Amino acid sequence: MKKMIIASTSTVHGSKYLAYLLPTLKKHFTGVKELLFIPYARPSGISYDEYTAIAKKAFSEINIDVKGIHEFENAKEAVNNASAIFTGGGNTFELVNQLYKNDVLTTLKEVIENGTPYLGTSAGSNICGVNMKNTNDMPIVYPPSFTTLGCINFNINAHYLDPIEGSTHMGETRETRIKEFHVFNETPVLGLREGSWLEVDNDAVFLRGKLTARLFKRNEQPIELISGDLLKF
Amino acid sequence: MKKMIIASTSTVHGSKYLAYLLPTLKKHFTGVKELLFIPYARPSGISYDEYTAIAKKAFSEINIDVKGIHEFENAKEAVNNASAIFTGGGNTFELVNQLYKNDVLTTLKEVIENGTPYLGTSAGSNICGVNMKNTNDMPIVYPPSFTTLGCINFNINAHYLDPIEGSTHMGETRETRIKEFHVFNETPVLGLREGSWLEVDNDAVFLRGKLTARLFKRNEQPIELISGDLLKF
Repeated sequence: MKKMIIASTSTVHGSKYLAYLLPTLKKHFTGVKELLFIPYARPSGISYDEYTAIAKKAFSEINIDVKGIHEFENAKEAVNNASAIFTGGGNTFELVNQLYKNDVLTTLKEVIENGTPYLGTSAGSNICGVNMKNTNDMPIVYPPSFTTLGCINFNINAHYLDPIEGSTHMGETRETRIKEFHVFNETPVLGLREGSWLEVDNDAVFLRGKLTARLFKRNEQPIELISGDLLKF
Repeated sequence: MKKMIIASTSTVHGSKYLAYLLPTLKKHFTGVKELLFIPYARPSGISYDEYTAIAKKAFSEINIDVKGIHEFENAKEAVNNASAIFTGGGNTFELVNQLYKNDVLTTLKEVIENGTPYLGTSAGSNICGVNMKNTNDMPIVYPPSFTTLGCINFNINAHYLDPIEGSTHMGETRETRIKEFHVFNETPVLGLREGSWLEVDNDAVFLRGKLTARLFKRNEQPIELISGDLLKF
């Protein structure tokens, strides 16, 4: 009974926070009056309160109130009782670290699988996969494990970037990094460009947005998926 | 008695592997006939043998033979007996993972501190710092710890990249990522651009190469260090 939106980014260039997603979210969160926000990823290290205020402002446009998980005495109960959940972007290592520290990872997986509508952006999308091994983030903290929700049976590379033609930089391209991942791991990886998202309707996963997405499987040539495609593994 | 070269990259654009560093390495490794190569970082997942062959070819130009650590029965003994050591770039997570798995991290630290001349490039430079929390690499494996050699009392961000003016990409810049690191950590971070390296002469650390390097300290504005500068913390 999963109902998830898994977005590459919260914000597309030149647009307000979540603005490009609001029509989709209005439908996705039909009937929801209050949403539980998980601000653990703290982009640029902002406080939970500051981050929650940003989410609150965006959701006010579709008449949904937002409360941060840190405002509740018991984080696990807050997840269990939520009528909808949004995990924001930021640093995936710190997000996963806090999900373990607050012992909410398993509960979050359970409520999502039981139908609580979920939105993830960026780091909040990375955690929907089997593990966080395809994040682009800097490992600023050491989480107890890289294992994440596994609500989809592949991994997400958010903010997917194509190689820059003519670049003189010798650091690895995103594609090279994902290919390195497949030397050590079997899990397929979806490179989700900014402006793309996945719509999960139980076990059906659809690519949404205007762009194509790049799917990497071990020992196979990467392929481009087209918006509307059903992802099956 | 430390004697280290800590380079941002093995290769600068348009030049052969290690070519820009060879004059420096010739002096750095004076009297060395055979060098121990640590290929654990496996760039693009190439094999230890393939990677060692690449290092061997480069060092043949300055008449130094290269042997991979995997060619020895006992990795710890190999480190202890080496007259010089080079750790190549690739994936820092896998490099650190293997240093722990093969139980050579402490030994490597000891021999470096006792004067075995060392070269690190990219991932092999990241491990010279206090921890690997400023790597740009993808966390494709989960190492038992992020703690590294601590042969210098700050961290390295190799392949440092300045923000790209006019970019529409919403992923974090390198500077943003390092600032996020400083929300959670105190260790200074040196952003080392491609073509720059550090020369460590016991406790004196000098910036070398033509470029400036960007030094980040917690709660301070980042500053640009000039080639030849002595780094003191």
